[in-house]
Amino acid sequence: MAKVWRVFFLLLRLLAVAATLCAVVIMATSHDSTTVFGITLEAKFQHTPALVFFVVANGIAFIYSLIVLFIPSTSLLSRSIIVFDVILAMLLTAAIAAAGAMAQLGKKGNSHAGWFPICDRVPNFCDHVMGAMICGCVAVITFLLIVLYDIHQVLSPKFP
Amino acid sequence: MAKVWRVFFLLLRLLAVAATLCAVVIMATSHDSTTVFGITLEAKFQHTPALVFFVVANGIAFIYSLIVLFIPSTSLLSRSIIVFDVILAMLLTAAIAAAGAMAQLGKKGNSHAGWFPICDRVPNFCDHVMGAMICGCVAVITFLLIVLYDIHQVLSPKFP
Repeated sequence: MAKVWRVFFLLLRLLAVAATLCAVVIMATSHDSTTVFGITLEAKFQHTPALVFFVVANGIAFIYSLIVLFIPSTSLLSRSIIVFDVILAMLLTAAIAAAGAMAQLGKKGNSHAGWFPICDRVPNFCDHVMGAMICGCVAVITFLLIVLYDIHQVLSPKFP
Repeated sequence: MAKVWRVFFLLLRLLAVAATLCAVVIMATSHDSTTVFGITLEAKFQHTPALVFFVVANGIAFIYSLIVLFIPSTSLLSRSIIVFDVILAMLLTAAIAAAGAMAQLGKKGNSHAGWFPICDRVPNFCDHVMGAMICGCVAVITFLLIVLYDIHQVLSPKFP
């Protein structure tokens, strides 16, 4: 039973690597352009600080998830990793929330502020942002499960 | 020494109550209006889903922080509270990130998307949002310290 849990935990770590890498790649390749009154306007993630933050946060989580795969579970550092897992979970949550706020605005706009939706003009860009956010959601849920597993492990010293 | 740590932890819980309540009250009372071409436009937090989410998340954290004050530290539930602390910390982080993304847009705008800044027209509203976000930041840092204390406690069973 303990072995099954360990394999499940390793799969969660691998899923975190895959999801954060997927989020970074899809967001970084988001690009679209539209022509308004003869002027070509470009949509890139670099134009929006919240989306840049999303890429940076997922990039950090990707590197962390890779490094942590090579830390042996018997090392002293392994018991302290829960602290970093919590901080990374919070960082990824912030990233998905900030990107989500901008994605919602891009799709629906905000008539009260005079901010019009842009997704009808740059649908390819919005599809990429949506795809990156799905990967980002998977990463957040994976990190939450990792933290819950960490807590379960430290609350039950004999487990697994 | 153990008593000092317990008092410090109680102070953190009380600070969480105060900061989340402050965030809710300041954001909920944010209101300003401006006249453009003879038409009066109103700025309210209810017009922006990210700010509504901020109020709801801080409201939930306020109620949780109040309830948790009355759970005795000797109860079995007390040891599982770390799970809820982590989830609430993530929820508050999401709230501050989403509100932060919108506040940044309100202040700086986004010329690429044709979204103009609004803070020069409704400064009172933006000042309230900024005040609420400062309280929200204090709440997030407080919850992070609470989670770190929780982890320290479960990693060191004899402490305090």
